Amino acid sequence: MTIREIAEWLGGEIAGGIIEGKPEIDRVAKIEEAGSGSLTFLANPRYEKHLGTTEATAVLVSRELDLKKIEGRASVIFIRVDDPYVAFLHVLKRLTPTIDPFTSGIHSTAVISSKATLGKNASVGAYAVIGENAVVGDNTKIGEGCIIGMQTQIGEDCLLYPNVVIYHQCILGNRVVLHSGAVIGSDGFGFAPKPDGTYEKIPQLGIVVVEDDVEIGANTTIDRAVMGDTRIQRGVKIDNLVQIAHNVVVGEDTVIAAQTGISGSTKIGKHCMIGGQVGLSGHIEIADYTVIMAQSGIHDNIKEPGKSYFGYPADEARKAQRAYIAMKMLPDMLREFTALKKKVADLEQRLLDR
Amino acid sequence: MTIREIAEWLGGEIAGGIIEGKPEIDRVAKIEEAGSGSLTFLANPRYEKHLGTTEATAVLVSRELDLKKIEGRASVIFIRVDDPYVAFLHVLKRLTPTIDPFTSGIHSTAVISSKATLGKNASVGAYAVIGENAVVGDNTKIGEGCIIGMQTQIGEDCLLYPNVVIYHQCILGNRVVLHSGAVIGSDGFGFAPKPDGTYEKIPQLGIVVVEDDVEIGANTTIDRAVMGDTRIQRGVKIDNLVQIAHNVVVGEDTVIAAQTGISGSTKIGKHCMIGGQVGLSGHIEIADYTVIMAQSGIHDNIKEPGKSYFGYPADEARKAQRAYIAMKMLPDMLREFTALKKKVADLEQRLLDR
Amino acid sequence: MTIREIAEWLGGEIAGGIIEGKPEIDRVAKIEEAGSGSLTFLANPRYEKHLGTTEATAVLVSRELDLKKIEGRASVIFIRVDDPYVAFLHVLKRLTPTIDPFTSGIHSTAVISSKATLGKNASVGAYAVIGENAVVGDNTKIGEGCIIGMQTQIGEDCLLYPNVVIYHQCILGNRVVLHSGAVIGSDGFGFAPKPDGTYEKIPQLGIVVVEDDVEIGANTTIDRAVMGDTRIQRGVKIDNLVQIAHNVVVGEDTVIAAQTGISGSTKIGKHCMIGGQVGLSGHIEIADYTVIMAQSGIHDNIKEPGKSYFGYPADEARKAQRAYIAMKMLPDMLREFTALKKKVADLEQRLLDR
Repeated sequence: MTIREIAEWLGGEIAGGIIEGKPEIDRVAKIEEAGSGSLTFLANPRYEKHLGTTEATAVLVSRELDLKKIEGRASVIFIRVDDPYVAFLHVLKRLTPTIDPFTSGIHSTAVISSKATLGKNASVGAYAVIGENAVVGDNTKIGEGCIIGMQTQIGEDCLLYPNVVIYHQCILGNRVVLHSGAVIGSDGFGFAPKPDGTYEKIPQLGIVVVEDDVEIGANTTIDRAVMGDTRIQRGVKIDNLVQIAHNVVVGEDTVIAAQTGISGSTKIGKHCMIGGQVGLSGHIEIADYTVIMAQSGIHDNIKEPGKSYFGYPADEARKAQRAYIAMKMLPDMLREFTALKKKVADLEQRLLDR
Repeated sequence: MTIREIAEWLGGEIAGGIIEGKPEIDRVAKIEEAGSGSLTFLANPRYEKHLGTTEATAVLVSRELDLKKIEGRASVIFIRVDDPYVAFLHVLKRLTPTIDPFTSGIHSTAVISSKATLGKNASVGAYAVIGENAVVGDNTKIGEGCIIGMQTQIGEDCLLYPNVVIYHQCILGNRVVLHSGAVIGSDGFGFAPKPDGTYEKIPQLGIVVVEDDVEIGANTTIDRAVMGDTRIQRGVKIDNLVQIAHNVVVGEDTVIAAQTGISGSTKIGKHCMIGGQVGLSGHIEIADYTVIMAQSGIHDNIKEPGKSYFGYPADEARKAQRAYIAMKMLPDMLREFTALKKKVADLEQRLLDR
Repeated sequence: MTIREIAEWLGGEIAGGIIEGKPEIDRVAKIEEAGSGSLTFLANPRYEKHLGTTEATAVLVSRELDLKKIEGRASVIFIRVDDPYVAFLHVLKRLTPTIDPFTSGIHSTAVISSKATLGKNASVGAYAVIGENAVVGDNTKIGEGCIIGMQTQIGEDCLLYPNVVIYHQCILGNRVVLHSGAVIGSDGFGFAPKPDGTYEKIPQLGIVVVEDDVEIGANTTIDRAVMGDTRIQRGVKIDNLVQIAHNVVVGEDTVIAAQTGISGSTKIGKHCMIGGQVGLSGHIEIADYTVIMAQSGIHDNIKEPGKSYFGYPADEARKAQRAYIAMKMLPDMLREFTALKKKVADLEQRLLDR
């Protein structure tokens, strides 16, 4: 595509540089690696330092970018757009040849129960197993080695990458993506102590419901409910190695980064953003639009929507950050405190001596 | 079952409400969701607020519950029992229809070495692989896609959910439950630095021993020992995504929540309770009956049994909590401290001026 | 082997004890468990207490060990070597019978695309799947149930334990070891928010490159790049349940312990040592030879090589440790601070009263 074609297609505005004689854009690249013929973008200010040196043919920048920052770079064309990253993604998708990693059709080695139901155009990879009375919707692709339990229902247009396990009786909506090694519907962690100090297993008789448009990362685990359901609502995105315990509810369009753990019966609101390695206690409720920063520990309800939290144990982000900064000053303060105590004792003595 | 039948079966005592004309109990439910015909329970005081509004036909409560809290709820029957949760579980099990997610028999696609030994009534799912000289005990169920290494021994009445991997030469006792994606017997993480800065792999020649009545969660990993064994003792319950390093010993009836990691050669006592996302250093010993709260970091031996720990780095729980509370007061204190220093300097000056 | 043979083979020096009449060494053991006929070693000073009681026939010790510590132990032979642990490993390897857990040859049930290429002596286990145009190098062993995506290239002498998944188009070097459940090349976690609060998936069009001599633990996940590659450089060792996000670079000979997470686009230097459960923010750079202690949270660039970091949020280790120690003194200090404020107010009053 020519630069003009790209700018027009993206609704962008051309700035700086001489457009004549520039090569066509045939690939995209990172700003620090882009060469002639490449399109790149600037979204994160951390990368602004590359504006003066990038060898890209064209750079997508924000309409807000101060044009002074790109002065004197006549060899590069800048295209100003509303959201340079999203614009870049559109070009990326268009220019990158992709392959479909799923094989089509039903592989001859797939073991599909005669009582299971497969939708139109559903595909099933080698060595996948689909249990009794399971249902797989139209156009859904089941990767190699996936195990779908009895009575489990999977909607339309889902992608299950290889070696996913879904236990019996779970329900997945449409357009759900599950990455390899994800386990859905394993038993919740429930054991009642007996008088002799051993434990009795609490039967986990509920299910997991994963609603439409959810994506779940590799090796993430979502436990089935004691009774009722563990529920991942529409549009939720979950990263790798996340643990979701029994009876948890994750609200619509909430995003959860890698290695976070949510304890039993906790309810996360809608549109929350939860960082990596966060831990949430059981039986608490988190308001909509809450932001929880990485590695925080949340032990109590969060009732007011739209606030940010940080720390272990967590506090409102600004307050927590002040506390952590103060903590770094603590060793110096302790030294000064000892000196001050001595000084006050001196003063006291001097006053007595008069 | 009628309310009277349930109360009698559980050894409970009926309180409040008019029993005549009440429907039979045909299902169980959470206290906030229960309707007519449901039995529910109250164990966690957090849920006491629902006592006044629940529409359950009957509620299991503790014999300790203050009866004033249920006054005026004539439409609901309360059954007082020793442990409402455990009593509830008994009813739950009795009323809930369950399915056995394991298929019976040896699936025709299972690859079982001619040198392996299978006990009576053992079942093996599709695409499971059982290696040379492996032993599977009576009534043990091996799920689809499980891989059992050479010379590994599995006891009786075990359940291995789909896609579990057990490396060679490991030993499992009876009634062990392994959830999907669990990996038992992978190499411990051991590398000796060489003078040129690269690493030499330390051979991991030991095994993993999992004793009777252990349950291990989905995608949990337990590494084999350098030599000797990594040992999970009788009755231990381990949640999802937990990491147990080489040569660790976990004592009887200890419970470990999700995403906790135990470093090499550490010995955990019996009857400990370890929260989620806890980290334990290597080569330390933890006394029996120790409680470690979620996300704590334990760097040293814990010698006295029965204490609670919290924090990063952890301290005795009460002490640690005081420190964390104090930390939140720190920014204010810093401000006051600066003011106090000024005040003392003023006093000093005034004293000099006289 | 006789003690003299072992000492000679290791280039060690015999100290203490009477060598005549001692049995041959036919096994190795931990110092606290070793009996007659065993060789053991002392490397970690924590275990020095066992020097006086071990029943081993011979003990490998450092040349630096103070000989006074082994006086009076005539029944035991001490062999002084440069590195007792590494010396011990050599003996361990030589004396321990090992089995090869991989079956040789191509199992009849392996599904190998007719367009895939297998090197000489490559072996493929039962129910493994190798996709279109994938390449497997000479002597590489693919375990049971592994799924190798289309166009993925695996070098020579690699070991893939059972149930590893490698997505399409990834590249592995030579002598790479992947433990069970590892997932290489899953989609990076990238979603662009849309005006209506839902998310648009950002296509993950790059790959993962794993260079020579890398070992990756069980159930570890390494995401493919948005574009370009996520790269694990030569000699890196990664433990179990680690998360490596898209576009991360891990430098040569860096070692990463279990359950650590590295966020997107972060670059880790060479020869770093990263403890367990560490979290690193995205888009940062960590200098070579950096040491990061367990459970730390790293939010900023580390520019100076060779320093140690600790804490949440992390600081230079010495500074952080001082702050954490001070924090434990904080509750007492708060009490004293209140007393001091009162005392100063008293002084002020007395001065006014004159």
